[in-house]
Amino acid sequence: MKNIKAFAPATIANFNVGYDVLGLSLNNIGDEVELTFNDTNENKIIQIINGDNLPYEIDENCCSVVIRKIQEAQHDFRGVDIVLNKGFAAGSGLGSSSASSAAAAYGYNKLIGSPYSNKELVAFAAEGEKIACGSAHVDNVAPAILGGIILSKGNKPSDIIELPIIDNLYAVTLYPNISVNTSDSRNILKTDVPLADFSKQVSFMGTFVASLYEKDINLFSDSLQDIVIEPIRSLLIPKFKEMKTIALKNSALSFGISGSGPSVFAIAEGLENANKIELALNSIYDNVDISIQTYINALSKESGARILN
Amino acid sequence: MKNIKAFAPATIANFNVGYDVLGLSLNNIGDEVELTFNDTNENKIIQIINGDNLPYEIDENCCSVVIRKIQEAQHDFRGVDIVLNKGFAAGSGLGSSSASSAAAAYGYNKLIGSPYSNKELVAFAAEGEKIACGSAHVDNVAPAILGGIILSKGNKPSDIIELPIIDNLYAVTLYPNISVNTSDSRNILKTDVPLADFSKQVSFMGTFVASLYEKDINLFSDSLQDIVIEPIRSLLIPKFKEMKTIALKNSALSFGISGSGPSVFAIAEGLENANKIELALNSIYDNVDISIQTYINALSKESGARILN
Repeated sequence: MKNIKAFAPATIANFNVGYDVLGLSLNNIGDEVELTFNDTNENKIIQIINGDNLPYEIDENCCSVVIRKIQEAQHDFRGVDIVLNKGFAAGSGLGSSSASSAAAAYGYNKLIGSPYSNKELVAFAAEGEKIACGSAHVDNVAPAILGGIILSKGNKPSDIIELPIIDNLYAVTLYPNISVNTSDSRNILKTDVPLADFSKQVSFMGTFVASLYEKDINLFSDSLQDIVIEPIRSLLIPKFKEMKTIALKNSALSFGISGSGPSVFAIAEGLENANKIELALNSIYDNVDISIQTYINALSKESGARILN
Repeated sequence: MKNIKAFAPATIANFNVGYDVLGLSLNNIGDEVELTFNDTNENKIIQIINGDNLPYEIDENCCSVVIRKIQEAQHDFRGVDIVLNKGFAAGSGLGSSSASSAAAAYGYNKLIGSPYSNKELVAFAAEGEKIACGSAHVDNVAPAILGGIILSKGNKPSDIIELPIIDNLYAVTLYPNISVNTSDSRNILKTDVPLADFSKQVSFMGTFVASLYEKDINLFSDSLQDIVIEPIRSLLIPKFKEMKTIALKNSALSFGISGSGPSVFAIAEGLENANKIELALNSIYDNVDISIQTYINALSKESGARILN
């Protein structure tokens, strides 16, 4: 095999209850990375499609950084030409750098004969995150590789838990095209959490995980609350309260910020509810001059990284 | 029925990962409450066995307070004579007031024909906690009534989750007979949790719950960590570090503080390991002039409150 084309999806990190440790993959939005052995010992970014501001320098582009880390671990330095095709906006809060990093890790691993398991690839993809965002949390890259809802208490394969998924759930995602920098969105957070909120938020994570195993929609909905991060970060998102109110009125099981925002998401039971919520969310921005994009994705364990050719 | 005798067990609150929201019941240590209709409209504390400092005043004793709350909710004020037989020390950190409150709630409910489900009784028993400890957290009373490992995001029945239990696990509990007041033990805690610790601790709760459903002993053991409360509260417990080290050396799956201490606990796989850990813990106090008591209890869903006669 000389050439491979890999896809990895956008992801909703945090997912209300798991700040920096939980994420959900979105099946049909994502990035493509095409890799072709170039018969040298150098990697090269050949083309970046739909990513005007992304770097071509191999030490700065998350794809080439991830591939280099795998090469170093394998002591195999066969270089590749890299074409990156961005499927959604950087800075959207939907795990843009993670989708690229995950696609690069997944594709390169397959290209060299799959020495690593998917869970082992997470730590490599996290190196791309580190370059792009300054921190190596795996809440985006883990679901971008593995698909579904992934809980991670660390980077090691044994730290990464693939949670069950309840049938017939849909994520409705809305991306308002405003710029929220991940590090700005981190910096406005208070550095400490009041003890009572901490305790409550820990319980929400616990009951959320139980709800997935019990397939208990009411508990799922009751549990998906963020009393720590959302009250602060939502301040940076225009019309957040209005969107949340209208989504919940339209039967959303939960509503929250995707990663560090500005994208927001609702979870709906059934496609009909998802469509209603999408319409309702759109209506909130009717009179505001911010362009928005909405997506509907079925929650699925088969929504992780994949080979396209 | 004119007379009933109810038992409710001691409990390990917090259980490493669930500060104020998680608890485990200990099958064979606990309090007995005997209730006899006295043909008046007044409740009366007749006798308290093994509880020298506990109040006889009906507005101050957790048993009579709990019974009164049920009477008010039922508009049924048939009074009872109450005999409380304490099975373990108050101030041990093993949920002493909770065992009494739970036994009173469970017994009185049965005596009047079980108008409430066990989950509904939790909120009544919590009123006893409030009187005894100043806060109405249900992390002790919920497992004292329901048995097993109980996660609670609130007081309502739908907030109270009975988690699965992995077979062949034992709790080894050690109570060093020193006085740690619950409110002192609360007061030494910092009022805020650093954001990174918060995130990590949330992930531990999530992977802990997953470990129970997956029956994954390694994940169970890896998850049962307390990086927030234990580092502070353990300062009040003599030889905490030595006990933890020797327990883990003797195959303990986890080690931690029971509730606000001073009792500590280890979880062991199999009775043989539990016996080894009990011996090892005892050895730590060999040269210290503090009397200790140890208990071994199988983890079981059938360990909650029960009727004895």
